[in-house]
Amino acid sequence: MSDVRIHNLAISLDGFATGDGQALDSPFGHAGERLHEWFVSTRFFRAADGLPGGTFGADNAFAERHEPGIGAEIMGAGKFGPPGWHDDPDWKGWWGPTPPFHTPVFVLTHRPRPSIDMEGGTTYHFLDATPNDALEQAREAADGADVRIGGGPTVVRSFLAAGLVDHMHVAQVPIVLGRGVRLWDGLESLEETYDIEAVSTPSGITHLTFTAKNR
Amino acid sequence: MSDVRIHNLAISLDGFATGDGQALDSPFGHAGERLHEWFVSTRFFRAADGLPGGTFGADNAFAERHEPGIGAEIMGAGKFGPPGWHDDPDWKGWWGPTPPFHTPVFVLTHRPRPSIDMEGGTTYHFLDATPNDALEQAREAADGADVRIGGGPTVVRSFLAAGLVDHMHVAQVPIVLGRGVRLWDGLESLEETYDIEAVSTPSGITHLTFTAKNR
Repeated sequence: MSDVRIHNLAISLDGFATGDGQALDSPFGHAGERLHEWFVSTRFFRAADGLPGGTFGADNAFAERHEPGIGAEIMGAGKFGPPGWHDDPDWKGWWGPTPPFHTPVFVLTHRPRPSIDMEGGTTYHFLDATPNDALEQAREAADGADVRIGGGPTVVRSFLAAGLVDHMHVAQVPIVLGRGVRLWDGLESLEETYDIEAVSTPSGITHLTFTAKNR
Repeated sequence: MSDVRIHNLAISLDGFATGDGQALDSPFGHAGERLHEWFVSTRFFRAADGLPGGTFGADNAFAERHEPGIGAEIMGAGKFGPPGWHDDPDWKGWWGPTPPFHTPVFVLTHRPRPSIDMEGGTTYHFLDATPNDALEQAREAADGADVRIGGGPTVVRSFLAAGLVDHMHVAQVPIVLGRGVRLWDGLESLEETYDIEAVSTPSGITHLTFTAKNR
């Protein structure tokens, strides 16, 4: 069966993957871009924007694993838009006319709407579903390829708690956010079901990888 | 002026430095020994117990920094004894007749008692004092050497929040404890006043070092 993967999920030292006060002009709340500076500096990220250069070391090696082999993504409502997007029938996501997903994307929401075809191969589908049911639909859409759980932290936690994740990559950034949405809540003893590796890089990031022990 | 240092403070991925349910037979609560396995495996720790062998790599290099140059320690009441020790006039600490400190040790407590001389150079003093006042007394006792803040996490946080710490070494262990006492609470933006380095080692530990920017 195909794998369920999480990549490039950035957290602070105190475990926050999103800051406090998410809004239209601040997708990550008071965290701003601080959790993602390492990522947007990579060659992988810059090339996707048609830009030259970028880091070419371990951070980039992890970043590049984001795409290959992925056939669908599942994301939370907060990754699709700011609070209130459900009330805007014209809202088409935070990701512009050509989103960087290039696959079917399943947006988990209690207020589904009709699917939206975007440029570049992304189609947004909207689901009010449990992690298990959402994964079943995403797997079918992925047609044998892997499914990425795209975040945010609440969605990631629910898939981890349901035991559905085969592989997770977390990038720990050396800042203390103090408030926001935590990744680790409710995941006591996660190390019992995952092999965990840690590697720090010269940029100051510590990459944590989790591989399900039953794979 | 002498430095204020924190060494070998172990935390889980989710930032807990002590587990839930501290008691006489479980000094670290439900965390057990899991936060300290890397430390007791080092040559430094084993040699202090008169045992041969032990790891000799980066974990040990960090561990060994615990002692040299330290002239006094400040610890919280929970590092001296389990809940209720204040009611036992004969309690002399969790650390046996020859404690591993070999210096004056200032125990912060709201119920001070007379000082206790132990074997091996350790003297316990009991203070009901603010971090600033406790540090002043510890500095005087240290006679020009550095002062170590020995933990637990509540005491460490209070000294960090008061801006009194020059150097901190945290060892992040790849487990998710889920509950206990967090290190990071109330320390938002700590990175603004500290240079932070991270290095992971083959044992899976990530050593985080904090150096005050104004030093």
